[in-house]
Amino acid sequence: MTKTRLEAFSDGVIAILITIMVLELKVPHGTEWSALRPIVPSLLTYLLSFIFLGIYWNNHHHMFHATERIQGNVLWANLHLLFWLSLVPFTTGWMGENHFAAIPTAVYGVVLLCAAIAYTILQATIIAGQGEHSQLAAAVGDDRKGKVSLLLYAAAIPLAFVNQFVSDAIYVVVALIWLVPDRRIESRIATPPRH
Amino acid sequence: MTKTRLEAFSDGVIAILITIMVLELKVPHGTEWSALRPIVPSLLTYLLSFIFLGIYWNNHHHMFHATERIQGNVLWANLHLLFWLSLVPFTTGWMGENHFAAIPTAVYGVVLLCAAIAYTILQATIIAGQGEHSQLAAAVGDDRKGKVSLLLYAAAIPLAFVNQFVSDAIYVVVALIWLVPDRRIESRIATPPRH
Amino acid sequence: MTKTRLEAFSDGVIAILITIMVLELKVPHGTEWSALRPIVPSLLTYLLSFIFLGIYWNNHHHMFHATERIQGNVLWANLHLLFWLSLVPFTTGWMGENHFAAIPTAVYGVVLLCAAIAYTILQATIIAGQGEHSQLAAAVGDDRKGKVSLLLYAAAIPLAFVNQFVSDAIYVVVALIWLVPDRRIESRIATPPRH
Amino acid sequence: MTKTRLEAFSDGVIAILITIMVLELKVPHGTEWSALRPIVPSLLTYLLSFIFLGIYWNNHHHMFHATERIQGNVLWANLHLLFWLSLVPFTTGWMGENHFAAIPTAVYGVVLLCAAIAYTILQATIIAGQGEHSQLAAAVGDDRKGKVSLLLYAAAIPLAFVNQFVSDAIYVVVALIWLVPDRRIESRIATPPRH
Repeated sequence: MTKTRLEAFSDGVIAILITIMVLELKVPHGTEWSALRPIVPSLLTYLLSFIFLGIYWNNHHHMFHATERIQGNVLWANLHLLFWLSLVPFTTGWMGENHFAAIPTAVYGVVLLCAAIAYTILQATIIAGQGEHSQLAAAVGDDRKGKVSLLLYAAAIPLAFVNQFVSDAIYVVVALIWLVPDRRIESRIATPPRH
Repeated sequence: MTKTRLEAFSDGVIAILITIMVLELKVPHGTEWSALRPIVPSLLTYLLSFIFLGIYWNNHHHMFHATERIQGNVLWANLHLLFWLSLVPFTTGWMGENHFAAIPTAVYGVVLLCAAIAYTILQATIIAGQGEHSQLAAAVGDDRKGKVSLLLYAAAIPLAFVNQFVSDAIYVVVALIWLVPDRRIESRIATPPRH
Repeated sequence: MTKTRLEAFSDGVIAILITIMVLELKVPHGTEWSALRPIVPSLLTYLLSFIFLGIYWNNHHHMFHATERIQGNVLWANLHLLFWLSLVPFTTGWMGENHFAAIPTAVYGVVLLCAAIAYTILQATIIAGQGEHSQLAAAVGDDRKGKVSLLLYAAAIPLAFVNQFVSDAIYVVVALIWLVPDRRIESRIATPPRH
Repeated sequence: MTKTRLEAFSDGVIAILITIMVLELKVPHGTEWSALRPIVPSLLTYLLSFIFLGIYWNNHHHMFHATERIQGNVLWANLHLLFWLSLVPFTTGWMGENHFAAIPTAVYGVVLLCAAIAYTILQATIIAGQGEHSQLAAAVGDDRKGKVSLLLYAAAIPLAFVNQFVSDAIYVVVALIWLVPDRRIESRIATPPRH
């Protein structure tokens, strides 16, 4: 089965998610600088979520680039990932409008954790279909980054009830870990000569 | 005529539909757990509609994968399907905001029934253009799943006025029937060696 | 220059336009049948605009299918068309919410007329770049349908101030004229054997 | 690494941005001509932003057309550009609803300036990956248009506090500079015979 449409559909969904978050940035009514102040938290949350969705798109891109063929269950594992990502604009809006209050911050982490789990499942599904000696399996390796992210999210959720800014800091740390594109896969793929 | 743009356009529309439903999940104003309670029915309805649109995308993907060439009338049969799917966010919002009241539940079923009929017409249009001995005709066979779905929707609509939760249960059953990807087509296509 | 991205971008814009119109269908607050009554005009207008955008997508598809290569000015002629189409959701919402009042009905026609002119310009731009003996020039011929549509729109705009339902009827007539897909182009293209 | 998905994703994001701006055109409640008057500034701002996003899409198209291969950092440089472009609907809405007031006009320019800087970075990133003797490096040359645009934006921002219409005029001038598609790249590419 070809992966072209799966990529196109995922591109479409992530492109829409990354842009409809902007609709949560309500146009202020005043025209002074102070009119922008209430949307600063929304803007910061938007930036964070933009980076997270950008990371997912990036890694999704690299992962399917290293994928040779897909089975029917990959379609569903992919939709499962897209479902959790589709909740990001909602939690982004809730956290941003409430200036990083405890519960919205925790719920933001829950959705990120579920998305990360869904990504891990998707990765495992693809590898299962390709065999352990596939290009992707080699590139992913022991998936240290993925495991660390899962742990950090799992820590950030309860910590939001202690001090939500600790959780926010953890989200930023996870984003920074991933901002470096997944060179593991890229370097493996780059090895064979391409023309 | 190439099917690439038809697929791309359908991918775009379904990707947008599946994500704009999220806009119906109004960001709550409070920051306690209880602030999330009123959106639970909307979230459940969203999940159900996400699965339905995912099923349509999945089956659409499989169907066109098994399609070799298309005629002009397929474009219109496809747009007809997309029209009914485009009403899903509206009925999803109505049913979700009204906690599965009788009439919104019935109307939700009407739109699903019309979409299912439109899908059946689209399938028949493609097969008519390809001949009875085509790969798709063989893969679809007697289309038992499709016929059962039509019957279940037709039953769920009047039953909403007896007890709407019976209808909701039927919608869940139809979703479960289809969650298994259309292996009929997949297995047929998988038979010839592909590289 | 390749036409792939121009097609993909146009597909994206039209797919979004055709679906965001659905956001104008405000979810009613009541749960009785009567709650649906106020949105009937919006639903009818949505259906009409869905068909118009479907026609444009269809003809756009056929036109670029018959186009071998494009120049830079085609990108702009195409964006010009997309600009007018992008105003369709706005005029659709205005006409639908005001139950086909005179001025919104006339403005709806103005946007359709401008879109039709933009389409004619785009077609002429492509043909100019390909030469008069191109496949597309032959397929378009004297473009009778296009000219009749322009005349009908131009008539519908002033007639909205006499009786807006005459204008609405004219819009429906134009839609019916085009609902038959552009077989001129299709038949020409179908002639050479394709594999 | 293939550039197809990067192009598709960028097409998706720009297509969505260019169309969700239309959602800021609030459907007026009255049905007289005067009901349209308050949205005239929003419509003009929409037109301006539509042209700017159209220019970015156009130049993006030309730039990647002249790009042979991309590295991982190009994905991030591209997302950086998309981030600034994604703020255009917000600033468009703010400027349009406030009839070109000083601060919204300046903020509009800030976002355009940042987008222009991001584009310059993206261009430099691609060229760095391809070598100074690449097709793109030759086509871009000394990038006079790009540098003039940066200067004009930088001038328009403080000038908004003197007279915002001077800034608006500068934005229009930048748009006009770019409305001529990037023939530099196009002509270079057109030179080798293509079939």
